[in-house]
Amino acid sequence: MPHFDLTPDQRQQLFSDLLPQLEAYYTHTRDRRVAPRLDPEKIREAVARFDFTEPLGAGEAVKTVVDNLLEHQVHVPHPRYYGLYNPRANFPSILADLIAAYFNPQLAAWSHSPFAAEVETYLIREYGKKFGYDAASIDGTFTSGGAEANLTGILCALNHCYPDYANRGFRAFEGEPVVYCSDQAHHSVVKAARVVGLGLDSVVQIATDEHLCLSVTALRERLTADQRAGKVAVMVIATAGTTGTASIDALPEIADLCAAAGVWLHVDAAFGGAAALNPDYRHWLRGIDRADSITTDIHKWLSVPMGTGMFITRHPEILSQSFRTTAEYMPREGGSFSVVDPYTHTIQWSRRFLGLRMYLSLLVFGWEGYAATIRHHVEMGDYLREQLTTRGWTIAVDTPLPVVCFTWPGHPDPGTYAREICARVVESGEAWISVYPIRGVDVLRACITNYATTREDIDALVRLLDRVRQEAG
Amino acid sequence: MPHFDLTPDQRQQLFSDLLPQLEAYYTHTRDRRVAPRLDPEKIREAVARFDFTEPLGAGEAVKTVVDNLLEHQVHVPHPRYYGLYNPRANFPSILADLIAAYFNPQLAAWSHSPFAAEVETYLIREYGKKFGYDAASIDGTFTSGGAEANLTGILCALNHCYPDYANRGFRAFEGEPVVYCSDQAHHSVVKAARVVGLGLDSVVQIATDEHLCLSVTALRERLTADQRAGKVAVMVIATAGTTGTASIDALPEIADLCAAAGVWLHVDAAFGGAAALNPDYRHWLRGIDRADSITTDIHKWLSVPMGTGMFITRHPEILSQSFRTTAEYMPREGGSFSVVDPYTHTIQWSRRFLGLRMYLSLLVFGWEGYAATIRHHVEMGDYLREQLTTRGWTIAVDTPLPVVCFTWPGHPDPGTYAREICARVVESGEAWISVYPIRGVDVLRACITNYATTREDIDALVRLLDRVRQEAG
Repeated sequence: MPHFDLTPDQRQQLFSDLLPQLEAYYTHTRDRRVAPRLDPEKIREAVARFDFTEPLGAGEAVKTVVDNLLEHQVHVPHPRYYGLYNPRANFPSILADLIAAYFNPQLAAWSHSPFAAEVETYLIREYGKKFGYDAASIDGTFTSGGAEANLTGILCALNHCYPDYANRGFRAFEGEPVVYCSDQAHHSVVKAARVVGLGLDSVVQIATDEHLCLSVTALRERLTADQRAGKVAVMVIATAGTTGTASIDALPEIADLCAAAGVWLHVDAAFGGAAALNPDYRHWLRGIDRADSITTDIHKWLSVPMGTGMFITRHPEILSQSFRTTAEYMPREGGSFSVVDPYTHTIQWSRRFLGLRMYLSLLVFGWEGYAATIRHHVEMGDYLREQLTTRGWTIAVDTPLPVVCFTWPGHPDPGTYAREICARVVESGEAWISVYPIRGVDVLRACITNYATTREDIDALVRLLDRVRQEAG
Repeated sequence: MPHFDLTPDQRQQLFSDLLPQLEAYYTHTRDRRVAPRLDPEKIREAVARFDFTEPLGAGEAVKTVVDNLLEHQVHVPHPRYYGLYNPRANFPSILADLIAAYFNPQLAAWSHSPFAAEVETYLIREYGKKFGYDAASIDGTFTSGGAEANLTGILCALNHCYPDYANRGFRAFEGEPVVYCSDQAHHSVVKAARVVGLGLDSVVQIATDEHLCLSVTALRERLTADQRAGKVAVMVIATAGTTGTASIDALPEIADLCAAAGVWLHVDAAFGGAAALNPDYRHWLRGIDRADSITTDIHKWLSVPMGTGMFITRHPEILSQSFRTTAEYMPREGGSFSVVDPYTHTIQWSRRFLGLRMYLSLLVFGWEGYAATIRHHVEMGDYLREQLTTRGWTIAVDTPLPVVCFTWPGHPDPGTYAREICARVVESGEAWISVYPIRGVDVLRACITNYATTREDIDALVRLLDRVRQEAG
């Protein structure tokens, strides 16, 4: 049985074998089909071929895994993947994962990983400042993604609304607790409401206007009626960049409403939050500085590996109030310093050093690098809209963000037609797009998710759409 | 501004610069101090030296990060780190993280990452079989760690107990819900109870016996009394390997009790679960096959990077019942196959491909490799106990697992003395141990966390303890 370290020679050999495979993938991603042909049985056979009774040579094991990943996944790092926001990982963030695996810092007690803990604190504060928060009041935590950040937001709102919630739980409720979001909010909000024991029954999905933004009028009416009926408005969750259409809710008006009603405002800016990193686009998020808490994903526009999210709040005590426990087995060396043990500020306990992906990216590219890449995404989105319009497509929803929902005008059954076009695009392997229902009717949806997507890629997508439209007849 | 890919030449140069640094660390970990001298201000200065206005060269950025990690963290991969269970990552699992960063599979929709999804399903089933579960009924999910797995367990128990819980939340409660665990259970249980809105008030911590195992008598009495009083026993959380002393609760008796009372049994085997991988030790977990659900950490004995946990259940419908939501924006290509979309079975939404760390490790080392390394850990624990006893130390708690709690007999103030010994050991930089209170009095605690720990390392620890005992007077 080989030592779990393997030998230095074996390790060198493995890098010599593996790096060219990975580099070939990274350099030539665009030569591949974007989506695989799906065959569950074939994949299951490939996975279960090994029952771990006879070890493989490490080189063979690595090659098996790489080959299967090449063959059996949607290549989200592909410049013609226009799908859900899964990014191509920038190169420094790839190195960050390699470095973190060697050192294996764990963020639970500050004293165990003080560099990692301070890096994350620093990044959260700096990002919070981009949202207009006062540096002195910023707190937050890295999360496994937007879902955990939204869950953290609900818990903070509950603990704010019911100061005795951490100890007494649901017994602290006085009146029926309600969480408001739009009918376009990410479904992780519903999942989070279930996790915290509010259930679906506590989630009120407010209707949206013609831009698929939360109707402030409808929210005001419902909130007022509910409060009159003795219900307790725990929070409003607004969205800055919905998953379906990248709609941005009217944050200033919603913030006014929340302030007047004394209700916690959480903004799910998992997608749109990064607009704060380009001064030219920051006004799209106007009002976000008035949010009590914010979700933003690092694994979207910041182009680092899955799953890296961030929760930020301007209430410096609320995470501690929500999550602090003490445990006798935790290291005590940090006790004499004014430091925060990460495990007291998060749903998790020991956490991986996710912040390194963002720190190393920022060291190499700087805020200006991110401003430039975000501008590139936005310009590619605008270019796609322009090209589609020129070719006769109709843009279904206005948004400044690079999500383009579009439809072919005049078709008698536009939903079926959109699904057929989409299926043909995906089947071609030349691009990946999806469909999304607007008012119950599917439209085509293409999102710029990749800093490496070029005008030529957009041109190719538009030509492909023309072609499959001809084929579909 | 450099392209986010950097150039192929730059990437090659970065690997040429970085790999020797990482390899030097991996090969010579034991030459370093285990714990750093803590200086928060110095670390904060190092972190905030860069405000991301002027990008660094990538090589310089990487070197800065590596240097700071070398200087400012407890080196948990060090063979003389005898602390909380943070492992040294085995080499294939390090490569797994590098591979995953390049391909960036995301586990939300099955059709996006079918290989990743099937690997995780396969690993969960195979691990479940090691616990004695019937292969046909096994379900589960990878988690960010034991805390999320325990949280998942509480949610499954709630949804099992109250079938309408996902929709109605706390409104579905009939009678006061109670969760039982021992006073030695991991505090993530308390945190999880707070997250699900039960609050601390729903957690009953049952007293432990002289081995710090949950007192079955006390549990039976309390459970009976509570049920008579109309309270609802939602679940019992037993522990197989407590964090403090590696005590293993009496699973068969607790399972009997739960079966008779109709109560969900969750076993937190975050640490001890891996004993199932060595047939000689499996009997330590006798009765675990009767648990309704199990937490086991992959980032402990399986020696992969933080944070990799696993939740396993023998109720194949419960995760879906607890977490299923549908979302219009999710890809639909998998719709015609009999497959599970990962996001319908987890608290998270999009997840990172954590299972690759375990899959690649198993391909290279096989189950036998794990059986052997677990035996090595156990033998090192036994050897440490033997050496300590020979030198006059008293072993404070019996456990077959490689956590050794010990004390110097006859000292008038044993707690203070233990803390002083511990502080001197940590300060020496030659090893890392901690203290843990047993019945309110701190004892010394050393855990074998590292497959690379040898008899010579144990000998060195025992000599060091002798030396600091002399110094302490």
